[in-house]
Amino acid sequence: MATPSIRVLVTGGTFDKEYDELTGRLYFKETHLPEMLRLGRARVEVRVETLMMVDSLDMTDADRARIVDRCRSAPESRLVVTHGTDTMAETARALAAGVPEKTVVLTGAMIPWAFGSSDGLFNLGGALSLAQVLPPGAWVAMNGRVFPAARVRKNRETGVFEET
Amino acid sequence: MATPSIRVLVTGGTFDKEYDELTGRLYFKETHLPEMLRLGRARVEVRVETLMMVDSLDMTDADRARIVDRCRSAPESRLVVTHGTDTMAETARALAAGVPEKTVVLTGAMIPWAFGSSDGLFNLGGALSLAQVLPPGAWVAMNGRVFPAARVRKNRETGVFEET
Amino acid sequence: MATPSIRVLVTGGTFDKEYDELTGRLYFKETHLPEMLRLGRARVEVRVETLMMVDSLDMTDADRARIVDRCRSAPESRLVVTHGTDTMAETARALAAGVPEKTVVLTGAMIPWAFGSSDGLFNLGGALSLAQVLPPGAWVAMNGRVFPAARVRKNRETGVFEET
Amino acid sequence: MATPSIRVLVTGGTFDKEYDELTGRLYFKETHLPEMLRLGRARVEVRVETLMMVDSLDMTDADRARIVDRCRSAPESRLVVTHGTDTMAETARALAAGVPEKTVVLTGAMIPWAFGSSDGLFNLGGALSLAQVLPPGAWVAMNGRVFPAARVRKNRETGVFEET
Repeated sequence: MATPSIRVLVTGGTFDKEYDELTGRLYFKETHLPEMLRLGRARVEVRVETLMMVDSLDMTDADRARIVDRCRSAPESRLVVTHGTDTMAETARALAAGVPEKTVVLTGAMIPWAFGSSDGLFNLGGALSLAQVLPPGAWVAMNGRVFPAARVRKNRETGVFEET
Repeated sequence: MATPSIRVLVTGGTFDKEYDELTGRLYFKETHLPEMLRLGRARVEVRVETLMMVDSLDMTDADRARIVDRCRSAPESRLVVTHGTDTMAETARALAAGVPEKTVVLTGAMIPWAFGSSDGLFNLGGALSLAQVLPPGAWVAMNGRVFPAARVRKNRETGVFEET
Repeated sequence: MATPSIRVLVTGGTFDKEYDELTGRLYFKETHLPEMLRLGRARVEVRVETLMMVDSLDMTDADRARIVDRCRSAPESRLVVTHGTDTMAETARALAAGVPEKTVVLTGAMIPWAFGSSDGLFNLGGALSLAQVLPPGAWVAMNGRVFPAARVRKNRETGVFEET
Repeated sequence: MATPSIRVLVTGGTFDKEYDELTGRLYFKETHLPEMLRLGRARVEVRVETLMMVDSLDMTDADRARIVDRCRSAPESRLVVTHGTDTMAETARALAAGVPEKTVVLTGAMIPWAFGSSDGLFNLGGALSLAQVLPPGAWVAMNGRVFPAARVRKNRETGVFEET
């Protein structure tokens, strides 16, 4: 299977939150994607691009339009978008509508990568693999599952992604 | 996308090596799969079955035949096999020949899961996702890539899986 | 050297903060002390008692009086108090004044234990050792250093404890 | 309490073992001391010097003589020696005899630091603190305890240090 080149667009979310030891608050510094890919010994051709660093609850329609635009303009036809979980399904639908001809897989984490107990590496492994084999469309890769954009939502009570 | 039930067959390998603090040697105790699935917050229906616990360099043809047999007899049509990396490609070819009607994804790790810096969680995330979407056949999921059984080998110099 | 019995009084602080994956906020659940002592393979006779679970910025004079009282009433003559760093020096002075006949060592962490990168285990190793050998009085064990209560402050700019 | 300058002499042992992902064996690369001190946010003036990198079962009398010599010739009067656990007690006795006028604290780990579950950071926190406050002599800091060189042994059955 020829290995396509993949672009990873970083948009923030729990995934990339850090702990500020002076204030005791969580904040964004830089993406951990390169470190995670190194840990995973990934040998896929990946280009990591930080598009924004926002909580997905703070993500605006303009932010979403920027993500759609960048997925369209990027030279790659296969992309992974890291994203906060709260509005991941919404962005997935925007991508499904706006970038129908490319394979875009959204993923994120319930626990920041910087914390030992993160699900981020598991999710990234899934998203990166799926981006290589799924057909065009927008997909959500969370909880070891894969959902088409049109049929996914996050259950806020349980923190789990479900099929609608 | 309906989520199929997946069987994970554990066969040993670096993945599940532990450090014996009395002897200073690496050994097998129990599989870490359940713990890893919990960390990944996996919500796929998964059945974990430990078939054997061996180094893949010690794996015999009889061991391989057992893996093939179990993949055939298992009720699931989608399976993940955790395996030592050294002879993973060989077992993949045995599975491709012996279980052509099921999707079987082999994966493993270069560093034991019990060590902080393992690639195991990344690989497991990939394998579990791929097992849900790939067509029948045997596949190797390593280094963030996916290879058909017929065209993969491990480069012993670099420790990296390559297409042949 | 006879190993004295040591009481560890847990009062909260960064040390024991957890990440709530549903809300994305930090909170207190239970102390990680038993897990940390297990990891450190500690063979000291230790009794862990959770006295309160508060941020040290929220700690009141009444809280401090409770800590002093408990150190006095506890059967052990050597104690470790885990504490938020922001007002650790203040509590140390209250203990120096209120429990002059016992050895009390305060410690804490800049990063929650639940995060992989915590300084907590290093600090706990120091505090527990010092509690066995230091003379009566209240001491702060942070940054690999040991300070008498009368001469310590936290530098809020750098997050580092200094001698005054 | 004025903070003395401390020399950390690295001699190898489980502490600094790494996992070689190509051979699956444990080996020595470089000491993790600087990384550990950074994680512990240590603000003690420490000089780390790698004297040798050996398993303590392989340590010869000549190696022990080198450790004694270096402790004597070092400008610091307070030292920490990281050491394999199997013969730590023996080296402690050599140091007690050969460097009576300095405070030397030996420590190590049952699990390599490179593995997530190591006791190394806990032990280092203890050793570094004790080196600042104990009187001259050689001491072993393990299992959260402190032993004078003359009265310590490792119980090979349990892996625990005991008073003799």
